[in-house]
Amino acid sequence: MEENAVGVHNVMEDVVRDTLLSYKNNMNLACDCEQCLSDISALALNELPPRYIANSKYSPYVRASHEADHQGITTIIAVIAKSAALVSESPRCETFVNK
Amino acid sequence: MEENAVGVHNVMEDVVRDTLLSYKNNMNLACDCEQCLSDISALALNELPPRYIANSKYSPYVRASHEADHQGITTIIAVIAKSAALVSESPRCETFVNK
Repeated sequence: MEENAVGVHNVMEDVVRDTLLSYKNNMNLACDCEQCLSDISALALNELPPRYIANSKYSPYVRASHEADHQGITTIIAVIAKSAALVSESPRCETFVNK
Repeated sequence: MEENAVGVHNVMEDVVRDTLLSYKNNMNLACDCEQCLSDISALALNELPPRYIANSKYSPYVRASHEADHQGITTIIAVIAKSAALVSESPRCETFVNK
């Protein structure tokens, strides 16, 4: 997708992506295509607090703070699992829409 | 900055960028370099609700809903103005840090 014109990045995007990829095999996904994973990520990111940074060199520090925060990561997993259940109920990718 | 690996995009990034560029001349910025504008955007985006989409073709619909929402855009301007005041108090760009 497009680059950000103003140089900002939401580190939560990386945290959600990594968490989703780590746990997707335990989430009974109806489909794990790129489109469905994006749908799950977008839903989850709309529920989680954004963590924007203006300089990507600080990204590891913000990510580390999330990895060390066990309660926080549990919340993130729960939000992703809820989003995954929603998307699995009605997947919108080509595989399912054309069925 | 890096592309998003999972194809999601926060439309609020575009709304904040456009609003900031429209109003920056009325915000008494200490500096309007790219770095300071990114700092202001990142601060504002951390306070505003994210509006992630998984398919960029829907971006105009989400943006239109923000443009039609006068109370919403007033809140966005207020958050950006607060962020701009914070960054203007202590700019971190090279122009100021090396002074």
